[in-house]
Amino acid sequence: MWLSVPANTDFSIHNLPYGIFHTGDGQPRAGIAIGDHIIDLAAAAESGLFGKARFFKKIFSQPTLNEFIGLGKPVAQRIRKKVHAWLQQPERPANADRLLADRRAATMLMPIQVPNYTDFYSSIEHATNVGKMFRPDNPLLPNWRWLPVGYHGRASSIVASGTPVRRPWGQIVPKGQETPVYAPSQQLDFELEMAFVIGKNSALGTPISVEQADEYIFGLVLFNDWSARDIQRWEYVPLGPFLGKNFGSSISPWIVPIEALKPFRVKGPRQTPAPLEYLEQKGKQQYDIQLEVAVAAGGAPETVISRSNTRYLYWSMAQQLAHHTVNGCNVQVGDLMASGTISGPVPGSYGSLLELTWGGKEPLSLPGGITRTFLQDGDRLVMRAAAEKDGIRVGFGEVSGVVLEAL
Amino acid sequence: MWLSVPANTDFSIHNLPYGIFHTGDGQPRAGIAIGDHIIDLAAAAESGLFGKARFFKKIFSQPTLNEFIGLGKPVAQRIRKKVHAWLQQPERPANADRLLADRRAATMLMPIQVPNYTDFYSSIEHATNVGKMFRPDNPLLPNWRWLPVGYHGRASSIVASGTPVRRPWGQIVPKGQETPVYAPSQQLDFELEMAFVIGKNSALGTPISVEQADEYIFGLVLFNDWSARDIQRWEYVPLGPFLGKNFGSSISPWIVPIEALKPFRVKGPRQTPAPLEYLEQKGKQQYDIQLEVAVAAGGAPETVISRSNTRYLYWSMAQQLAHHTVNGCNVQVGDLMASGTISGPVPGSYGSLLELTWGGKEPLSLPGGITRTFLQDGDRLVMRAAAEKDGIRVGFGEVSGVVLEAL
Repeated sequence: MWLSVPANTDFSIHNLPYGIFHTGDGQPRAGIAIGDHIIDLAAAAESGLFGKARFFKKIFSQPTLNEFIGLGKPVAQRIRKKVHAWLQQPERPANADRLLADRRAATMLMPIQVPNYTDFYSSIEHATNVGKMFRPDNPLLPNWRWLPVGYHGRASSIVASGTPVRRPWGQIVPKGQETPVYAPSQQLDFELEMAFVIGKNSALGTPISVEQADEYIFGLVLFNDWSARDIQRWEYVPLGPFLGKNFGSSISPWIVPIEALKPFRVKGPRQTPAPLEYLEQKGKQQYDIQLEVAVAAGGAPETVISRSNTRYLYWSMAQQLAHHTVNGCNVQVGDLMASGTISGPVPGSYGSLLELTWGGKEPLSLPGGITRTFLQDGDRLVMRAAAEKDGIRVGFGEVSGVVLEAL
Repeated sequence: MWLSVPANTDFSIHNLPYGIFHTGDGQPRAGIAIGDHIIDLAAAAESGLFGKARFFKKIFSQPTLNEFIGLGKPVAQRIRKKVHAWLQQPERPANADRLLADRRAATMLMPIQVPNYTDFYSSIEHATNVGKMFRPDNPLLPNWRWLPVGYHGRASSIVASGTPVRRPWGQIVPKGQETPVYAPSQQLDFELEMAFVIGKNSALGTPISVEQADEYIFGLVLFNDWSARDIQRWEYVPLGPFLGKNFGSSISPWIVPIEALKPFRVKGPRQTPAPLEYLEQKGKQQYDIQLEVAVAAGGAPETVISRSNTRYLYWSMAQQLAHHTVNGCNVQVGDLMASGTISGPVPGSYGSLLELTWGGKEPLSLPGGITRTFLQDGDRLVMRAAAEKDGIRVGFGEVSGVVLEAL
């Protein structure tokens, strides 16, 4: 490759993730990340790289990737191949300056408009941990091992990495009391999740099978499902989480194509009991993607507080999608389906402060004598993810956000 | 009015609801219902009725009303006033033929593209009835009288009246067993609801107060939240209903402007305990809108099986919206917020078969010796709604759907 990229970059030539960026001119356009650069796809289209210059320039000048993704995987794979070939030329091409933007100077926007957002609950370690705290007698409910439990979340409040999150007000029952007060949340938390982006519409009434799922999964992003535990605890029965979640969720701005993650497929946990027929899946169901969560709290330097891995997930994306649509529910291009918090088997691998501090009972010690049970105003939370194998690295960059004080 | 409308029409000159229709030419456009006619708003715009002919023709030729609604209430009120004046002319205007379509021959489409859909649970009678069946020891949970319980539903599967609904497959635990089977739902039900359409975007992080709510509520539609009770019962803990609901919801195609419903405002039920400060509301919080549900089952003629009224609702729309956004959650033009099942205090006023047959234990007797606990294939379910007072009638038309057999 004529373009030099930093060793250990998340955005190697094996990745080529898609995003929407601007460079201060306010003109959003599509790009592919490579090392510390972005390939401006609108400029690449204009230069004729993909053929049909006018058509693709228009597609890549949209403020989201939905229209592009909706063209289908064969089109995305052709674009990917052309970009790959352009980067693999022996010498720097004449149009390099025109096509390349400085990734460090670019502003990343929401890569997609999200028509529908679903959150699953697919880590058995997380479900068990939370269950122990919310329902000590009954941690893992009877349905959990039979189906990928999930619920609908709020699409409107999903924001791109870097957007601050405002501490929410809500109804909270103070410790030892039985009736609620109206107050800012005192238990603001994160949830470490991965989400997949739907790449193809399905028809209402027509299920997607486990075998068909790959056709519908375009790519993955990191997902922070900010949560206000005190609001959630009071409101969640019997219809599920609502205001404890819908004040904001953050995603990493680069959509890593599912094809780039193929080398990292691994077997998932053994599923017992055996799934019902429509959830049966053979082979490598999960991905070996390393995850980490860091916090910069109270002005202290960033400290890693959790390391987990998507391979711990019990239910696979194909099973989630087959379950979601088994009743005929339709999916739409740009829909996000998040994994639920990804906790591993040991305390340092838990994907939320709720679990890391065991409900606030065991505060985390950070550098400089700072401790945290839940997030405080000004804290900056960062998640990172990358897969690595045989010298190939495919990463997600990061999803970050600073906590703002309540209004 | 030079145009004659049937006595007792839902679509009187006091109503003027908005919809999207086509007349067989496949060209969707906006219209206002009046008696058995539709005023074609695209044609009216072209004829100069609203001024800025080109602008409004484009607005009213969109396949949904979102763009029009997004222009804001002052614009909608001006359009309403112009249409009202056009109808009130002493003689039939020259452009009448061009502007009027036959409502009975028109096909109604989804009036809006729904960015987000929320379902509340605001009837105390319904919550108590369902609670008794699902949780006999604990029917009304402790949070219910403190906040309008709600959850996010699936926007993609909301369809216009007349669209058939396919019986869903899913996981069901047969009676007397503890583990699920994969089978078509045997407990397909309806839920009688009313939903409001959001008319104005709000900013993420900025709550909407009870006092501001009217600015954000554009109008109302009837809402049938089809439900598969057997699927729902097994899946709903701890994150709420999911596949038991998201296979489809139906709405009436005409959006009744909230302004047309002002004469029918009434006091709602007394709220005890007194709501927290952000939910405090004075004056007439509810609407006196009569509701009915009818079923045509097994080839028998349509029979009314329930009569209810929106005035029974415990939580108001303003309270629902204030609660939904108190944590900073943003709303978007076209969002739907449904009331939850509207049950009255007596058995004949319950808004679902679950309640009308008390969990299937007391089958309904229909004409011709037909009985029903839940819906069977081929059954046609119809909901209607209208407000009437001092000779003024403002109705919703109907929302209907036929049950198709499972795939």
